[in-house]
Amino acid sequence: MSILIKDVQLEGSTTSIYIEDNRIVEIGPKVEADTVLDGRGKAAVPGFVNTHTHAAMALLRSYADDMRLQDWLEKAIWPREAKMEPEDVYWGTKLACLEMIRGGTTCFNDMYFHMDRAAQAVKEMGLRAVLSEGFIDHRDSGVGQELLKKHRTMIKKIEAVGTDRIRPALGPHTMYTVSRESLQALREMSDERGYLIHFHLSETRREVEDCMIEQGTRPVEYLDSIGFLSRQLLAAHCCWLEPQEIDLLARAGVRVSHCPVSNMKLAAGAMPYKAMREAGVLISLGTDGAASNNNLDMLESMKFAALLQKFTSNDPTVATAAQVFEMGTLGGARALGVDAGLLAENRLADLALIDLKRPELNPLHDLISALVYSAHGNVVDTVICDGQVLMKGRKVPGEAEIVRKAADVGRDLVARE
Amino acid sequence: MSILIKDVQLEGSTTSIYIEDNRIVEIGPKVEADTVLDGRGKAAVPGFVNTHTHAAMALLRSYADDMRLQDWLEKAIWPREAKMEPEDVYWGTKLACLEMIRGGTTCFNDMYFHMDRAAQAVKEMGLRAVLSEGFIDHRDSGVGQELLKKHRTMIKKIEAVGTDRIRPALGPHTMYTVSRESLQALREMSDERGYLIHFHLSETRREVEDCMIEQGTRPVEYLDSIGFLSRQLLAAHCCWLEPQEIDLLARAGVRVSHCPVSNMKLAAGAMPYKAMREAGVLISLGTDGAASNNNLDMLESMKFAALLQKFTSNDPTVATAAQVFEMGTLGGARALGVDAGLLAENRLADLALIDLKRPELNPLHDLISALVYSAHGNVVDTVICDGQVLMKGRKVPGEAEIVRKAADVGRDLVARE
Repeated sequence: MSILIKDVQLEGSTTSIYIEDNRIVEIGPKVEADTVLDGRGKAAVPGFVNTHTHAAMALLRSYADDMRLQDWLEKAIWPREAKMEPEDVYWGTKLACLEMIRGGTTCFNDMYFHMDRAAQAVKEMGLRAVLSEGFIDHRDSGVGQELLKKHRTMIKKIEAVGTDRIRPALGPHTMYTVSRESLQALREMSDERGYLIHFHLSETRREVEDCMIEQGTRPVEYLDSIGFLSRQLLAAHCCWLEPQEIDLLARAGVRVSHCPVSNMKLAAGAMPYKAMREAGVLISLGTDGAASNNNLDMLESMKFAALLQKFTSNDPTVATAAQVFEMGTLGGARALGVDAGLLAENRLADLALIDLKRPELNPLHDLISALVYSAHGNVVDTVICDGQVLMKGRKVPGEAEIVRKAADVGRDLVARE
Repeated sequence: MSILIKDVQLEGSTTSIYIEDNRIVEIGPKVEADTVLDGRGKAAVPGFVNTHTHAAMALLRSYADDMRLQDWLEKAIWPREAKMEPEDVYWGTKLACLEMIRGGTTCFNDMYFHMDRAAQAVKEMGLRAVLSEGFIDHRDSGVGQELLKKHRTMIKKIEAVGTDRIRPALGPHTMYTVSRESLQALREMSDERGYLIHFHLSETRREVEDCMIEQGTRPVEYLDSIGFLSRQLLAAHCCWLEPQEIDLLARAGVRVSHCPVSNMKLAAGAMPYKAMREAGVLISLGTDGAASNNNLDMLESMKFAALLQKFTSNDPTVATAAQVFEMGTLGGARALGVDAGLLAENRLADLALIDLKRPELNPLHDLISALVYSAHGNVVDTVICDGQVLMKGRKVPGEAEIVRKAADVGRDLVARE
């Protein structure tokens, strides 16, 4: 199976991209392939990589906004999540995948529950994903023992869905909801099997203060002391870090997911991007779940990342368009250990074609600036993931049915007694 | 000429909207009209009102980003603006109008130059606008005398374009670029003729500090002391205000345009929304020019307004979806003295129809939250302004030609010696 994207803009020149199976095989003049896509008037960019989300929460978008974090969780989100069935997660994930495809995302890192059903949805939609079941033992290591067994079973179920596009990962929720013993056991599983660990870290000031009271030390120092930091750890948020914590993250090779939209919406805080970048921390970009964003649009998150960092640094030269674009592409691919994020020969064929005729992209003085600051996900015309065309001319097969069904499921979910 | 929007969602119920000439005449069951639009699967909302922009700067979007404000102005923007011809302003404004229509904006407040050509563009595109020529005398009242004459001539030229949709206004740039005498003369012209005064106020910390040094008082206090504050004053930005200045603005009835995207992108500051709202200041929303945004998407600006205010207040309950939506609709209409911003009988027929089938709007638990937090301007399917259909099914007549021509003009502009 081969695809030729003919006469497309790539980094400022016109060329063609030849894909065989799931890899970019050649960039340059080429005339034949099983499928030929007309690239004229379009630019090819790497598919976006969303390194922190809870896809099925799309069912709860705009269900509860403008609330304090604890109220939002306790009064709105958790009660609804308690009613969520495997089929809800399946349809919620289908909807989220549809939205991601329409916004140019080809790969994402997801933590939620009933993740075997999420895996089925991802498989059908054609995206690439790292999937972890959320792990919460409420710091009871006895409960943790049971959960670890279930975690292993879930990993097998996710693997049984059977596609190379999906990798299971471990999902300890936070340091304040998971026991030390479980965190250490998960770290061991990660070392043995190479699993990524998907984790929330220092999202709010309050969790840092609680940690100081309970552990007498800051979260990253605590995690370092129990041997939890590693190259396989992907930590979302990281809003409240002191310089010594940034050093610890950098030295341990921890990967970070910056989630500016969610952090601003919940008034959680702002990740210290500049210091982290200077320390050499691998920074990627996440939307977080659609209940706290409320969309999965990576181009929007790039703009928020750039503007939030400029604003908090009081310096408009911080977080340039090129930097945040890389955060949402190559940074994400590196964070998830996926051989994508760049359009180059031998890389995975995960890419998006941008419609350059859109008014908001004209005049086009600088494509990356225009994508980050002027555009939203809807400028994406075509999406290819793993060498398969998932969207063409903004049409995704079956989309009306997915929207209809997920809307029904979402309405039913919030009405459930 | 009559239009019937049949079976459309309006504030949670299904109804029909009947328009005659340029007014909404009836909301309720109705069967006939010259034009019948199918409203099924769509929601009607007021057209958005953008109260601070420089439309033709769309030509310079993404030409110079990630720069310090002074460098950006002195090294990038001003040298290019010095090369701008009336035809550039015409095409830049056409492009901006096209983008605004595609994003659901029906009315805007613009300050730039060659504004008679901007008026021609607005007339052709069908939008409603308040247009002011930028007035800068570099605090030389002699120069100011000459400029006042030109200002009057330009107002006549704008009026000569001849449509009720366009109103001329006065455009003193800032207090640090316009002499006291000119500000006072413009205030008099405003009082005599009812013109709105479009003004930049306290955008950066530096201009406040300079004012303190030069005038021994803060900007709003200075403007109050020279008799410049009035109900006809529309002040953009207002990032750096002390409580006593907020009081002065509230008491004088000054209207304010909050520009969160531009303020964050240029690291200018954040308007003290909460205190201003509590003081009763009339707050509306602006995108600012596309060179510092870099788009004209009011739904995006609503999200930025809400999230910036939550973030700086450290309180996610501040700036709710309903509040920022009103800021971008009724707030704007009131700020510009336009009888729109609400869908009600006898109001101007300025409205947008939202495509409710979009994945990012589903499930639809709350339309306003979904529009503010999940959507971008591209969810708008149909736009009606002054009783005329400007876009239907996301098609604006002549759009490809406008994009092509404006792109040519923009490329030429940045290459000019």
